[in-house]
Amino acid sequence: MVFSSDLLENAVAEFGRLPGIGKKTALRLVLHLLKQDPAQVQEFSDTIAKMRREIRFCNRCHNVSDQELCNICANPMRRQSTVCVVESIRDVMAIEATQQYSGSYHILGGVISPLDGVGPDQLTIESLLLRIEEQGVEELIFALNPNIQGDTTLFYIQKKLQGRVIKMTTIARGIAFGGELEYADEMTLGRSLQNRLPVESYLDK
Amino acid sequence: MVFSSDLLENAVAEFGRLPGIGKKTALRLVLHLLKQDPAQVQEFSDTIAKMRREIRFCNRCHNVSDQELCNICANPMRRQSTVCVVESIRDVMAIEATQQYSGSYHILGGVISPLDGVGPDQLTIESLLLRIEEQGVEELIFALNPNIQGDTTLFYIQKKLQGRVIKMTTIARGIAFGGELEYADEMTLGRSLQNRLPVESYLDK
Repeated sequence: MVFSSDLLENAVAEFGRLPGIGKKTALRLVLHLLKQDPAQVQEFSDTIAKMRREIRFCNRCHNVSDQELCNICANPMRRQSTVCVVESIRDVMAIEATQQYSGSYHILGGVISPLDGVGPDQLTIESLLLRIEEQGVEELIFALNPNIQGDTTLFYIQKKLQGRVIKMTTIARGIAFGGELEYADEMTLGRSLQNRLPVESYLDK
Repeated sequence: MVFSSDLLENAVAEFGRLPGIGKKTALRLVLHLLKQDPAQVQEFSDTIAKMRREIRFCNRCHNVSDQELCNICANPMRRQSTVCVVESIRDVMAIEATQQYSGSYHILGGVISPLDGVGPDQLTIESLLLRIEEQGVEELIFALNPNIQGDTTLFYIQKKLQGRVIKMTTIARGIAFGGELEYADEMTLGRSLQNRLPVESYLDK
């Protein structure tokens, strides 16, 4: 691309660095912003910078949060003794959208995947074990994506907790194997939460 | 979508306002930025805001520019007596990419389209006429998209210039009728510049 302005070129380059945004799309977005009111663009830019600067992660469940504890962990109406273990923030959003779950969460920040260089130490598993130790967790609901990495992670955590009196379930396989949790419809995801299975029976299959 | 953080929600809303970016995509982009270094995100945000704040439009051709005159208008190697009339900045970029054109440009900022409420007054036609008057323009090359609006605009400007001794050409119809200039390949676009036709013969067809 040939640019008549460095300012324009730099802005296009910045947008082009975002995942899934090619050069043509980046240019389209920048030319759109060029047509907007400068104050509006300043607002856009300030909001993004502020988000990254000020956002925090909940001390307990590792969800994004504006305070030390996220809305869910700080909510006395949510059962803190039930913990739903998920891979990412998006999965929390998907489950919250079903309006079928009143417990708390634990965000692992990924799943065990040796091929991608992700081991248990890169995840928040240690913090989950500590939480079980200290905060009287009675049930773990695993809502990991149903694939090899998800199963490995489930297996690893189950091993770590062997001998503990704690109920462990996984959400029902209503979702196709290899599918992504966040794209499931709310009906399926909600029902799979209600029909959750003991971990033993799931791993036996 | 259910958010655990206002900062996150606001950032997603800002991205979601961009054209062609839905809520899911906006969330994906924001979660990507969340994983980046804060300094890098600040850089992203500053670059966008600076672009909108400081960008100028060339006094002569209305292209985006960092100075009063754009690189092309200020370049003594470019023939200022030949002016290529285009709809938008993107078209300039498409023609520049062919490396076949050594004249200057005039960006109309759109085309006459009564259905969209765009009349001649919303475009930079008056400034083009003034430029022809004052700066010794010898040839106008029309490189408008080949559709009704483009043809109407071409016809309007030709009428305005009736009686003047000025050469007017249009780029050759190498591009399919209804096609978009900016997506043409460089070969076709370059050749259509070389084989440009007198306006009279184009409008007669």
